[in-house]
Amino acid sequence: MRAALAQINPTVGDIDGNAAKVATWIEQAAAAGAELVVFPELCIPGYPAEDLYLKRHFNEAGARAVRELATVARGVEVLVGFSEPAAVGDHRHAHNSLAHLAAGEVVGVYRKNRLPNYGVFDEQRYFVPGADPATVDVGGTRVGLTICEDCWVEGPPASEEVAAGATLIANPSGSPYHRGKGREREQMFGALARSYGAHFAFCNLVGGQDELVFDGQSFVLDPEGAPLARAAQFEEELLVCEIPGAPGRIAEPFPDLAEVYGALVLGLRDYVAKNGFAHVGIALSGGIDSALVAQLAVDALGPERVTCVVMPSPHSSDETQGDARTIAANLGVEAMEIEIGPTMDEYDRAITAASGQNAEGLAAENIQARIRGNLMMALSNAHGWLILTTGNKSEMSVGYATLYGDMAGGFAAIKDVPKTLVYELVAHRNAVAGRELVPATVIERPPSAELRPDQRDSDSLPPYDLLDRVLEAYVERDQGREEMIAAGMPAETVDEVVRMVDHSEYKRRQAAPGVRITPRAFGRDRRLPITNRFGE
Amino acid sequence: MRAALAQINPTVGDIDGNAAKVATWIEQAAAAGAELVVFPELCIPGYPAEDLYLKRHFNEAGARAVRELATVARGVEVLVGFSEPAAVGDHRHAHNSLAHLAAGEVVGVYRKNRLPNYGVFDEQRYFVPGADPATVDVGGTRVGLTICEDCWVEGPPASEEVAAGATLIANPSGSPYHRGKGREREQMFGALARSYGAHFAFCNLVGGQDELVFDGQSFVLDPEGAPLARAAQFEEELLVCEIPGAPGRIAEPFPDLAEVYGALVLGLRDYVAKNGFAHVGIALSGGIDSALVAQLAVDALGPERVTCVVMPSPHSSDETQGDARTIAANLGVEAMEIEIGPTMDEYDRAITAASGQNAEGLAAENIQARIRGNLMMALSNAHGWLILTTGNKSEMSVGYATLYGDMAGGFAAIKDVPKTLVYELVAHRNAVAGRELVPATVIERPPSAELRPDQRDSDSLPPYDLLDRVLEAYVERDQGREEMIAAGMPAETVDEVVRMVDHSEYKRRQAAPGVRITPRAFGRDRRLPITNRFGE
Repeated sequence: MRAALAQINPTVGDIDGNAAKVATWIEQAAAAGAELVVFPELCIPGYPAEDLYLKRHFNEAGARAVRELATVARGVEVLVGFSEPAAVGDHRHAHNSLAHLAAGEVVGVYRKNRLPNYGVFDEQRYFVPGADPATVDVGGTRVGLTICEDCWVEGPPASEEVAAGATLIANPSGSPYHRGKGREREQMFGALARSYGAHFAFCNLVGGQDELVFDGQSFVLDPEGAPLARAAQFEEELLVCEIPGAPGRIAEPFPDLAEVYGALVLGLRDYVAKNGFAHVGIALSGGIDSALVAQLAVDALGPERVTCVVMPSPHSSDETQGDARTIAANLGVEAMEIEIGPTMDEYDRAITAASGQNAEGLAAENIQARIRGNLMMALSNAHGWLILTTGNKSEMSVGYATLYGDMAGGFAAIKDVPKTLVYELVAHRNAVAGRELVPATVIERPPSAELRPDQRDSDSLPPYDLLDRVLEAYVERDQGREEMIAAGMPAETVDEVVRMVDHSEYKRRQAAPGVRITPRAFGRDRRLPITNRFGE
Repeated sequence: MRAALAQINPTVGDIDGNAAKVATWIEQAAAAGAELVVFPELCIPGYPAEDLYLKRHFNEAGARAVRELATVARGVEVLVGFSEPAAVGDHRHAHNSLAHLAAGEVVGVYRKNRLPNYGVFDEQRYFVPGADPATVDVGGTRVGLTICEDCWVEGPPASEEVAAGATLIANPSGSPYHRGKGREREQMFGALARSYGAHFAFCNLVGGQDELVFDGQSFVLDPEGAPLARAAQFEEELLVCEIPGAPGRIAEPFPDLAEVYGALVLGLRDYVAKNGFAHVGIALSGGIDSALVAQLAVDALGPERVTCVVMPSPHSSDETQGDARTIAANLGVEAMEIEIGPTMDEYDRAITAASGQNAEGLAAENIQARIRGNLMMALSNAHGWLILTTGNKSEMSVGYATLYGDMAGGFAAIKDVPKTLVYELVAHRNAVAGRELVPATVIERPPSAELRPDQRDSDSLPPYDLLDRVLEAYVERDQGREEMIAAGMPAETVDEVVRMVDHSEYKRRQAAPGVRITPRAFGRDRRLPITNRFGE
């Protein structure tokens, strides 16, 4: 059988637009001679549409769109994901379903059996599970139907479908990216293929949705677990494959850093596009974080859609300000300059008049950051820009950022990128360019927030390589104090980092969303109370 | 049997502190001659502890605390809630359990059967459900064990426990407040009591935890559904009751507005106390919203722990500024004054120098709000204050607030209070005081943000009574466009409000937490994507 996997990029809530896109891709699949075309999980309503799935009229609109699609689907059978209205007496109103379209009709529906409810997934909040396996016969091949999580645990429905004669298991998915996820998936599905002696066709979404990036990288594996076909990462693609057959189009995955960089670019590009922004603004400090954000923005949007704003204070060094201008020039983006010294003085005057004393220490430092935040937002209001914040994951973890200051903005492009990885990504991008887009001085200079004279990040934080090791253990792997110390991390550092992470929860709760690239980001996948006296 | 319900206020994560509190209340119950004392759901780890329940060492620490409690529990049998470590192969590591302590030992454990996974509840994310009912015999009475949701649907485990001879069903709960929830609970449990012919003992948490308030109001119902005992709202109480027996202590619930006001006070007081703040700051505008927040803060903390800051701009009227000073004086709180006009001028100068044009319109309005936000945060940084934001639910719904401006702060005291209810609560508090704590002029003046000359809320928004009606339908009841129009709401208003609500999701995502008093707040119970093209 000739099958096609339609690795598409739908938009959450855009039922009409998504259905129109599906119709176009059905035509393309038919034109390519496919007998069956498989679309990703929930691609009609978009995924994850979160509490939209709780609206009855939302699910009904999707079901109508699927019925209309059936009437235009010609020359190829179709499996397309939608949120199917469900009549139950509790809080849920939908199944996570797959419609089988053939000969102008919806000829069958498969309902996802296994609903993940961990990590970023809340599917037991939204969906009523199906209980039955399902197979369809297309061009002499019996195809077993599953959706995403259904295949992440051995057993039904896939095992029953194989027992019923299926030689190919179709697995439309919405499988979000994290670093290295593609390999994990192929290994897992490879083991399944060998275990069941069946072909597996995994068709993933591609695109960004708020904090999640779907990386595509759909594939077909043969019963030995070897790839017959693999689609590109981070791009739409119609992957056509003879099943069974000889290996065909097999896209090579990106190397590690290029993959992470690609995920960040796609997540940013789609947030900007799907929310209708024409332009972004970035406060460029001359440090490494805002340099990476500027690189990403230019790669995502093109230089003409990016403005960098340099806002020196009396604590800014000539070196960092010069580097900021160099970065903007190297990237070919407009750079604005706004001196904030006189505004700082005016705050001082107002506070002294009101309270009899000057702002000092942390208060004075944060005033500077918040003046910059205010200016960036004024530019946003005046020109309709989306402001990109520049905090990395290490800073967001320990709260080394100013709420309403450098945290002011609509999208946090590198929120899930640990500081040590920020350096690697900048070096990677320089290497791809074959020149120092970001000057070596930016990479080599000890990091500083430049909010007081001679400030260094290392005044307040452990060295970043150690910090990132503790953070990975504490945040991503939920290790406790004793476990981290037993693993060789210094007790004093562990206690300090745990305290800082826990104490910063209130800041993260008010942070802009940003692209998730690790197995656990500060988003839907980590839900901790602000009020919390547990400190281990 | 003499039973005691220990309606206590634990703190999330404070396992040792909570266990020590439980030990004290066990002693009090024994001293009161109780044969059985029942504690609320999950009161050892605190509730909801969210992803803390995913940490193995957190659950193990709680289990240790329960074993230690058993050794000190003397003279009375105890039912106490904890997150019991569970050995399963998936993402969950705990049961939501009830330990039965007697004669110095943990003699049994009941595991919650029904795990709610809707609204604010994510229990299928955290807990492995139990499958079995359980009864314990105490002083000749057979007691059926359940936990919260177990009783919110008829059937097992309660039905099986009654069939096994239980004449009393114990229901330790963590049942969060919304307006009128107490009546709903007693009606629901009353129907169950009549249906099963059994007594029911509902023991609730009391206290605030981030956005949730637990209102207490524990009760015992007889088999006719009539109360034998009822504890106070919003306070800790040991409720002692003979079962069966004659009605004893039956606290009268507060009237509607007093109840909502009490919930807001408790939620604010506990957020401040449990997060260790000594003092709060409020930007007082002379409008009705900040007036209510100041009233609440004084009632929650006392006037000496509150500072109001009045920050006039050239657009502030003498009337509002005078009213702000009057409110502060009437409440007996310190009032600071900071003129922001010169700082506004300095921003103008900086922006004009950089871009060749002055900030105008929305940009200029927001600069003012953000100067105030910056000043409040400088005071917070300098003095360790928690800043209370003053936005109401109507404004938060439609985004009529300035991100990083009036939205800057740590706790949003009236975030879930619709504007129409703000007026009612201020009038209620004035009535209780028997004088105009908040002057009538504040209540009568048309609402204005005072960010430009002669601005009125009604320039940008529908009248608040209509707005609040549409919001209640759209936000709290998930009604669609057609349904709202069919219910008589003007199509133009419906479309405008839906657009504003959807478009403001990005703002709400960066808002401070605040007390939930309606069936659906902008918190864990409403999870909508920012990127969302569905507009109905």
